[in-house]
Order: sequence, then structure tokens, then C-alpha cells
Amino acid sequence: MANLDAIIKENAENTERITQNTQGYVISNNLHGTIATSTYDNTISMGIIKLLCGTLVDTARSAVRDLDCTNDLTFLRVATKKCEYLIAPEEEFTIVVVQ
Amino acid sequence: MANLDAIIKENAENTERITQNTQGYVISNNLHGTIATSTYDNTISMGIIKLLCGTLVDTARSAVRDLDCTNDLTFLRVATKKCEYLIAPEEEFTIVVVQ
Repeated sequence: MANLDAIIKENAENTERITQNTQGYVISNNLHGTIATSTYDNTISMGIIKLLCGTLVDTARSAVRDLDCTNDLTFLRVATKKCEYLIAPEEEFTIVVVQ
Repeated sequence: MANLDAIIKENAENTERITQNTQGYVISNNLHGTIATSTYDNTISMGIIKLLCGTLVDTARSAVRDLDCTNDLTFLRVATKKCEYLIAPEEEFTIVVVQ
């Protein structure tokens, strides 16, 4: 699989266009639990990675499998009073868009 | 606050109409962690209540507050390969629609 950073560079233009009307986004490198790219500062980015890409995705994935072991999580939308977190969990990376 | 069962009875017709094109729904009584009403059998209903209304909603709510203590969870959508869980967490009850 091509290097995650290379993929991000290749898709930079698309990413900018798609995320124009959003508050921001974070892409986490799931293998290392690090920030692949982000529009936020380090503290907010790591908070999103730890709490959403990590804990929440893991909890959602295991709940889905516990309810039906042949099923799997594909996407999560967390609506809140102030914004909405759109979470796309892939194997090597997870994309979180805040709108 | 009027009794949850009375509210459910009052809204039975609306609920049927709204959930016509869905796979099913569960309403949990959050005060007792019990099934207020459900279109599923006991085992599936309690699984949904424990895993989604309980664990997942708690995890999502604390993640949202950890990221911004002035914010709060209002709705959750869990998309999976086979269906989508729409979770509306209220104080005394939580509605889960499966579509």
C-alpha cells in the first residue's frame, strides 16, 4: 500500500475543495496513532484522534459486531449542539470532518 | 413529567407511521435501563439498549464534552455494512431506529 503521506499529498487539492464549507478536518494514521494531516493545532488534533478515532470508533465497532458478528462499522456521525463530527474509519487511517 | 408509557401509547400511531420503512425500533427507559417499547425480541432489544443506548451513547457524550466542555451530544448515526442505527439520546429515554 502506497505511503499514507504520499496519498494525502496527491489528494490535497480534492481535500481542500471537499472541505471548503467545513470547520476543519483531521486524518489520523491508525498504525502509529499520530496526526497524518490536520487543520487544527496539535492539542485539538490529538484530542480528536484519541477520543473519536480511537475510543469512540472502537466502542462503535465492537457494539456493531456484538449485535451481529457478520456486520461491520462503515461510518459514524456525531451530532452535537455546536457542530457535527463525520467519522470515516478505514484500516490504516481515519478521516474526521467537523462541520 | 407524564409517565413514559403513557407518552408512548399517545404517540403509537405517529410512531408506526414514521417507522414504516425501517427495519425496527427500540425505546429504552434510561432510568431503569429497561425496554419501554420495541419491535424486536427481548434479546435483541436488550443488546441494543446495553451496547448502543448505554455504552456507545456514554462514550460519545463524554468524548464530545472532553473536546469542548460547553458542548453536548444531540444525535448519533452509526452506519454499518447491513443497516444504519439512528440514536436519539434524551434524558429519560433513548430512541433507536434501525433502517
